[in-house]
Amino acid sequence: MTTTITRGKYVLVRADLAGDSTVLTDGAVAQTDGQIVDVGAYDDLRSRHPDAEIVGNGRQFLMPGMVNAHHHGRGLSGLLLGQPDGGLETWINHAWGRRSVEPYNMMLITLLNLIRSGVTTVMFNQSVTPRRVVWDEAQANLRAFSEAGLRTAFSLAFKNQCYLVYGNDDDVYGKMPDDLASGVRGIVEGSILSTEDYLSITADLIRDSPADSTNMVRMLYSPQAYHWADEDTLAHIAELAKAADVGLHTHCVESYYQRLYAERLHGQTPVQRFNELGFLGPKTSLAHCVWLTSDDIAILAETGTSISHNPSSNLRLRSGIAPVLEMHRQGVHVALGTDSTSINDDDDHFQEMALSMRLHRPPGLDVPYLSSHQVLHMATLGGAYETTFGEDMIGSLEVGKRADMVLLDWDRISTPYVAENLDVLDVLVSRARATDVDTVIVEGKTIFEDKQFKTIDAAGVVEAVREELSTPAPEDLTNRRDLAARLEPYLRDYYADWHVPEQPMYHYQSLG
Amino acid sequence: MTTTITRGKYVLVRADLAGDSTVLTDGAVAQTDGQIVDVGAYDDLRSRHPDAEIVGNGRQFLMPGMVNAHHHGRGLSGLLLGQPDGGLETWINHAWGRRSVEPYNMMLITLLNLIRSGVTTVMFNQSVTPRRVVWDEAQANLRAFSEAGLRTAFSLAFKNQCYLVYGNDDDVYGKMPDDLASGVRGIVEGSILSTEDYLSITADLIRDSPADSTNMVRMLYSPQAYHWADEDTLAHIAELAKAADVGLHTHCVESYYQRLYAERLHGQTPVQRFNELGFLGPKTSLAHCVWLTSDDIAILAETGTSISHNPSSNLRLRSGIAPVLEMHRQGVHVALGTDSTSINDDDDHFQEMALSMRLHRPPGLDVPYLSSHQVLHMATLGGAYETTFGEDMIGSLEVGKRADMVLLDWDRISTPYVAENLDVLDVLVSRARATDVDTVIVEGKTIFEDKQFKTIDAAGVVEAVREELSTPAPEDLTNRRDLAARLEPYLRDYYADWHVPEQPMYHYQSLG
Repeated sequence: MTTTITRGKYVLVRADLAGDSTVLTDGAVAQTDGQIVDVGAYDDLRSRHPDAEIVGNGRQFLMPGMVNAHHHGRGLSGLLLGQPDGGLETWINHAWGRRSVEPYNMMLITLLNLIRSGVTTVMFNQSVTPRRVVWDEAQANLRAFSEAGLRTAFSLAFKNQCYLVYGNDDDVYGKMPDDLASGVRGIVEGSILSTEDYLSITADLIRDSPADSTNMVRMLYSPQAYHWADEDTLAHIAELAKAADVGLHTHCVESYYQRLYAERLHGQTPVQRFNELGFLGPKTSLAHCVWLTSDDIAILAETGTSISHNPSSNLRLRSGIAPVLEMHRQGVHVALGTDSTSINDDDDHFQEMALSMRLHRPPGLDVPYLSSHQVLHMATLGGAYETTFGEDMIGSLEVGKRADMVLLDWDRISTPYVAENLDVLDVLVSRARATDVDTVIVEGKTIFEDKQFKTIDAAGVVEAVREELSTPAPEDLTNRRDLAARLEPYLRDYYADWHVPEQPMYHYQSLG
Repeated sequence: MTTTITRGKYVLVRADLAGDSTVLTDGAVAQTDGQIVDVGAYDDLRSRHPDAEIVGNGRQFLMPGMVNAHHHGRGLSGLLLGQPDGGLETWINHAWGRRSVEPYNMMLITLLNLIRSGVTTVMFNQSVTPRRVVWDEAQANLRAFSEAGLRTAFSLAFKNQCYLVYGNDDDVYGKMPDDLASGVRGIVEGSILSTEDYLSITADLIRDSPADSTNMVRMLYSPQAYHWADEDTLAHIAELAKAADVGLHTHCVESYYQRLYAERLHGQTPVQRFNELGFLGPKTSLAHCVWLTSDDIAILAETGTSISHNPSSNLRLRSGIAPVLEMHRQGVHVALGTDSTSINDDDDHFQEMALSMRLHRPPGLDVPYLSSHQVLHMATLGGAYETTFGEDMIGSLEVGKRADMVLLDWDRISTPYVAENLDVLDVLVSRARATDVDTVIVEGKTIFEDKQFKTIDAAGVVEAVREELSTPAPEDLTNRRDLAARLEPYLRDYYADWHVPEQPMYHYQSLG
């Protein structure tokens, strides 16, 4: 058993929501076989573990590996592949116009971005694919995670209704000219995975990766949202997850239209419906949650349900800004994710922290605001709950936990000067970016060092993808883009009388 | 006369608010003695100017140099110097706790950040300093701009009232213990520049840099805000500016408290007061403007007044989000600035564009939102109006204008692939960052090339500042920090009954 000591000028041991984070100066973390065995002053650890190998030059910032709490694996972004940003309901079907990339390489490209931004655990939600490819894709994705050495909470997204709109798709099909309807139907039906197949494939994945066999993978069930599966199926899946002791991950009120759908059907919010269906609990996580009510937040707090806050994605897809301060106030676990749609299109998790910290700063001298401690908690411990790996395993640098760590170039961040009166966590969140990440360690293994990937042939992957995409686009791509473009006005028309209340950002209220 | 041709795979000739921007593929711009003389296809320009020197490898993105429309020259940020972020009214006096840096080097450090982010013109507002140093500081700053080769609209900020609060400072002094009051009074009085001195120094600066003598400098008057100078002085300065045919630059409704101050005194908004005082017009620019009314916006449109939108700063100082969509709807000129307080603390103007584009995307499928064309217009032509250099001189790459240009590494931005159906301006604003800037040209001169500074000894400046700050802090710095900290509760108390209306961001309204 070899012991390794990783040292930092500063060590963020544990980020605390109340602002009382543990930060060591000239500290270090010792790990043996991927488990943290000692934390303290570097000099003390050196004495206690005289034969240990030393990682870090003592001038860096050492922090827990971060969790990207909601991701679909599009390291080569949807935008670059041909899907311009837009409002969620019209944007989503423009995914038909994306160039496709061979799944294994696409996953590796994704992991390059995640690793270099200091992410060590990913809530990965594989997009809907038909039966004939979903299993192979899942295997390719899992292989990429395993080879790269990243932890993943892994699920297959699944829908069995509302492929075009939140409601009855036939209402929309009925208005289209025949050629458009049949073209759209062809694409939609080609993507359907039956409920039966979804359940059996997920059961197989759980069987192949039982939680007690590995620290690296947690399987979850993932019906894609309240409106994207019927209630009987949601309740059934919740029971299956409970029986298998695995988590549930889904999308929830990403847009106001999604909330309206449930309210129109049942007079209740999606969170209320989820609660009645037995879908919520400490192993359930909901991505987005932009349009919660205060009562919804109380339900999530009471059931121990986690949330992935995805601020970039919610701005890019015009969904809104989630009420994170109120979630914290009521004691809900909140994690941070980029949803493959980050503000700079690069999955920089430090940028996502900075954006989040700035968005949740409403005006008024005595109004609460999101602190650097809170946003670091979201990016670490918040993700530990959310991914079901749990607080005992990841999210902080404490004895007994797995050794997931990131070393940052504090010299760059602090050049030429940092005043001595500052909270170094304020400086970190304000200034650190993915480009400052020097070393990434997962389960005790160094997978990124001196800004070089140790487990992935980065240049080779990028070149392979470039080559794949340098071939002519598939013949039907233009057709698929045309169909998505022709479909869009029918979707707008469908939602035209769904009232989204006036959206005052701070300032709009001042328009008198 | 030497002619130079600068070429790009794409050339943004002119950003258009309505989305009809002019973008050339395999285009080029020819300039002679700093003036653009030809724009078109690269091959055509090559034939028409056979002896011209060629700049650029043909794979880059060529765009107009950008304008940072509001800046105070803190390239080494207030944060790093010891002033943590906070609500504007309590934050501002914590500036007393900043380590100071020798002005010439501080300006050069600032210009390093601005140049490397593709900024070629800066609305620079020199912070308040007392009589004995203001002239020397101005000369040091102007020398730095001149040596670096950047265009500047230059002004000295000035206040003659409301040093502690928006109202009567004596209300606050009266509540403090004597030692605190006398300490605070000492700092405040040590920073005062008399109205007479301010006017004579600005007149001297205008005399030394008349607009018809140089393309590089435009002097402006700058009382610091409506509340920071008395109305007689504001009206007098407006007359002086008109007589000298120079611009006016000031802060306006950065926070809601600033609006309340005017409303409490006069029952009118600061914009309405400015209008009555003859302060508005095509050569007037207002920084921030977060809390405008619709009527205010109509006044600004009618008078041709420009606005500098500073989204990062407004989030960091908890001011709010300015109503940019409504400004555009009513036809107000809007520019983009970082206010030395950008989201990543580095003045990255591409990041500021991206943030702006994302913030102004309210929910709802049929709600207007800020486009990449609009945000590029703000960063270029919007700043041409705002700085008073004018649309005839800067802001686009058209014949007759000055040659201010930026070459970006499109290979990086587009690696490994960009789908052919995309608007390249969407891709540019979504993905380009300061680190992609390869070459910066101002007035035809290359000041940054291959990511290297040509006019500033970057390493030397950083080292000089590092050395200056490695000396012990001045003895009174701890005292100044203590005074600012002790003052803060008195400020909170002063504003406690100034009602800031509930601040619904999109989501808060959904809390039902």
